[in-house]
Amino acid sequence: MAGGSPAHRGRTVTSKVLALLDAFSTRQPEMSLNELSRKTGLPLSTTYRLASELVDWGGLERVSGGGFRIGIRLWEVGAMAPLTASLQDLVLPFMQDLYDATHANVHLAVLDGTTALYVERITGRRSAKVNLRRGGRLPLHATGVGKVLLAHASEEFRDEVISAGLRRYTPYTIVAPGLLRRALTEIRRTGVGIAREEMSLGLTSIASPLLDAEGRALAALSVVLRASGQDVDRLVPAVRTAALCAARRLREQYRAPANGPLPATNST
Amino acid sequence: MAGGSPAHRGRTVTSKVLALLDAFSTRQPEMSLNELSRKTGLPLSTTYRLASELVDWGGLERVSGGGFRIGIRLWEVGAMAPLTASLQDLVLPFMQDLYDATHANVHLAVLDGTTALYVERITGRRSAKVNLRRGGRLPLHATGVGKVLLAHASEEFRDEVISAGLRRYTPYTIVAPGLLRRALTEIRRTGVGIAREEMSLGLTSIASPLLDAEGRALAALSVVLRASGQDVDRLVPAVRTAALCAARRLREQYRAPANGPLPATNST
Repeated sequence: MAGGSPAHRGRTVTSKVLALLDAFSTRQPEMSLNELSRKTGLPLSTTYRLASELVDWGGLERVSGGGFRIGIRLWEVGAMAPLTASLQDLVLPFMQDLYDATHANVHLAVLDGTTALYVERITGRRSAKVNLRRGGRLPLHATGVGKVLLAHASEEFRDEVISAGLRRYTPYTIVAPGLLRRALTEIRRTGVGIAREEMSLGLTSIASPLLDAEGRALAALSVVLRASGQDVDRLVPAVRTAALCAARRLREQYRAPANGPLPATNST
Repeated sequence: MAGGSPAHRGRTVTSKVLALLDAFSTRQPEMSLNELSRKTGLPLSTTYRLASELVDWGGLERVSGGGFRIGIRLWEVGAMAPLTASLQDLVLPFMQDLYDATHANVHLAVLDGTTALYVERITGRRSAKVNLRRGGRLPLHATGVGKVLLAHASEEFRDEVISAGLRRYTPYTIVAPGLLRRALTEIRRTGVGIAREEMSLGLTSIASPLLDAEGRALAALSVVLRASGQDVDRLVPAVRTAALCAARRLREQYRAPANGPLPATNST
């Protein structure tokens, strides 16, 4: 292993640095030098040299025992991403209003690849316990925000997600393509997507899209509450209203990038 | 300029990639290729090649007109930084409680270099307008959180900050070293730091530290409200209580890095 994998050859230094960052995940936020080398296919010496440069910069930090983890400087640089910064500035106050009115968890997600990427989250100690943080990802077909984002994506994108297979997370997850397609049509009609214990038993999510002027979903907003508790129907108008208000604000101010991160357009 | 600055030679590729990221700031979140090249001292061709690799990865995104800005992938990687992720998981619910009780802005900052780095923020539409977001920085001597972090730093660190000069932001900013030192001593005694219109006219901040077992300030929490409005004295116990609760939670779970980002220890 000292020479690294053959895949190492021909890679640019930049791609190696980025591979080091890619090695970290929310499931494995801390990695030893050996693990980093194995996961990236880079020789130990290269891994050590690049990781040390990242530590000096503040992008990685060392932990006792010799491990590495993501450092505060990368967090700081990432906080400048205009999409998430705009969502924070423009949408978060409306999410806070929704939290004030419901004391439920309030989530905001964007479509990224074929998953829902959670970019904002409000939770209080009275809210149902949801194991999720900013930067976390969940599947599209089993979550409220995911179904809303999927409903407003292109037909081709929906086909791609559905044909990749619909994994079952609970007995209530919709895994039949026909049923999911009908649910998505209904979401486009009503502007609201509900996931009743489809991702986690005991939790229901009510979601609504933030549409741009062309009808693309820039993001989706949801409340997540105990399935057994409050009346879901009662909260639907509140979620829809917050999403409409937030989308209006976002349309006034946010400028989409020339390419991505919103690859899918609403073709319906 | 086609050959770049002489400083370009001898730099590693990694340092060049990181210099590209360093070029962006909250004041200048979008940069043209020319601006990036000028700011980093890298030749245009190198700048273009490295920026393109970052775009392919998702760390930068292009905007119409040819500019670049930070992309969602860097945000996602940065969201894994354990300090900020722990603060989000462990401290944010207490901040939410404080918001529920006050409807004031609630801020959380850490010491980074010689500034206060804001890592969490809760604001509603009823809160006083504060122009600040996660990832923003403010000076230590003129803000509530900053004074609290400074009060709990080492004597050497305080000397360094004070001797670097205390810039005046408003007529109320404390710019006399002796006055500031007395204020910091008082903060260590009471556990609360108040900044009355010292950074921005019309805004008062009440802050309290989150101390680790060794008495170092891991972070500082504050409410920021209109100076003219509510009774400041009334909110002091609420801020202090939230900080004590949050610090207890943080001490149970968060493991500090082997080096940084908390260079200063409380030597008092």
